[in-house]
Amino acid sequence: MIDCGEGTQMQLRRSKIRFTKLRAVFISHLHGDHCFGLIGMISTFGMLGRTAPLHVYAPEAFEPILQGQLDFFCKGLEFKVEFHAVDTLKNDVIYEDQSLTIETIPLEHRIPTCGFLFREKPRPRHINREMTDCYEVPLCQLNNIRNGMDWTTPEGIVIANERLTTPADPPRAYAYCSDTRYIPTLHELVAGVDTLYHESTYAEDNLSRARLYWHSTARQAATVARDAHVGKLLLGHFSARYEDETCILDEAKQVFENSWLTNEGLVFDV
Amino acid sequence: MIDCGEGTQMQLRRSKIRFTKLRAVFISHLHGDHCFGLIGMISTFGMLGRTAPLHVYAPEAFEPILQGQLDFFCKGLEFKVEFHAVDTLKNDVIYEDQSLTIETIPLEHRIPTCGFLFREKPRPRHINREMTDCYEVPLCQLNNIRNGMDWTTPEGIVIANERLTTPADPPRAYAYCSDTRYIPTLHELVAGVDTLYHESTYAEDNLSRARLYWHSTARQAATVARDAHVGKLLLGHFSARYEDETCILDEAKQVFENSWLTNEGLVFDV
Repeated sequence: MIDCGEGTQMQLRRSKIRFTKLRAVFISHLHGDHCFGLIGMISTFGMLGRTAPLHVYAPEAFEPILQGQLDFFCKGLEFKVEFHAVDTLKNDVIYEDQSLTIETIPLEHRIPTCGFLFREKPRPRHINREMTDCYEVPLCQLNNIRNGMDWTTPEGIVIANERLTTPADPPRAYAYCSDTRYIPTLHELVAGVDTLYHESTYAEDNLSRARLYWHSTARQAATVARDAHVGKLLLGHFSARYEDETCILDEAKQVFENSWLTNEGLVFDV
Repeated sequence: MIDCGEGTQMQLRRSKIRFTKLRAVFISHLHGDHCFGLIGMISTFGMLGRTAPLHVYAPEAFEPILQGQLDFFCKGLEFKVEFHAVDTLKNDVIYEDQSLTIETIPLEHRIPTCGFLFREKPRPRHINREMTDCYEVPLCQLNNIRNGMDWTTPEGIVIANERLTTPADPPRAYAYCSDTRYIPTLHELVAGVDTLYHESTYAEDNLSRARLYWHSTARQAATVARDAHVGKLLLGHFSARYEDETCILDEAKQVFENSWLTNEGLVFDV
């Protein structure tokens, strides 16, 4: 989960995602609309009997605040909340497992803020079942073959992996750029990602306001997307002054065609 | 406002109540579902430019928690949040103005908890316009007459107030009894109120669970309502185990007929 504003636990319930699937929360910065929902969500997990640890990645100033809330409101919690302080000024890998790395993306907002870049690791190749059947490859070898091994038949003939498999799907990448003013070099860090979320609080009609409050316009978000050659751009964090965000979408599309407005509950493929 | 769980600011917006009309929040106890929404609501008020003070009445342990959140998340707030520590063990008048008194109602829950009793002060009588016109009472005197004064005509004839007015509406009273186990003497404190909210987390099928977690059943809530001779009983805080709360309502109605299930967004007259 990236960011956790007030009401996140209600949205999570509506989305029908099982609460137990959530292992980590990444907080981009300590404004209320990005973190006020965490303590309520943790409390609810506690009441539902969660036992698996929950990892929280956030700017270090959040640790004493969260700990104070946990001590007061969540006595006897039966799972660990493990806090990981994030340096918002560095582009670092802060998480890695078998299938994924997660990097911080330094951003420029009124307070320390970073984005997060999720990179899938190279994925296994697809078995060509007709060929493995034909060469009578035993089931226990299929994982090795997915991972690129050739197959040697009992007669000693080597079958090249390329004959037994088709190429893996390309690994996917998703970059989430939370509240930030326009950063002309940001495209270097998010180059080539499949999906880029970039805030666009305003359209260009409010460019000076965007500068004042350290936010971005739709044109600026789309410029990052274009310069980074991303697959698609998701726009969000719209100012309440726009009753209809079509102007934001239109402005972005003029710079980067594959732009989309996000909204509560919408689902996008990465 | 009584209690302020997560998401309250969203509900307040949906209810179309103007945010500026809210002057005080009364927190019954420090479980998250009764107070996690306060900091978000205060933040939003700040961003909307509120200047009028907001009064918070709550158990005293809340003060350092709230202050810590305000210091970190609401720097430069342009209105005062005035904290009033409430002694949950006493039945005290904690608020009084021209039209209203508010008393604490000691309750019995796992942590210090109280309810709140809102009593309207005696209201002015209604002007009988035909009579005041007939006696040519000047407009500037009508408030005095509403408040019970007789009228002396220029000729010196005293007209009794009862001839110029009809009786005032009886002052209303609303008692909110937050999370609590059944208290056999509670009816004494809420005797005769027009509307009583009393939690009924469970029906009698979960009586032992109600005891264990310091909650009440519908029959117990209705017993308080019956013994206190209230006008109507509002039931709420239902356990998630009841998919359909009809059994809770039916159980209450067997003891006290004028019982109602509450739900988000429902509006009741006091």
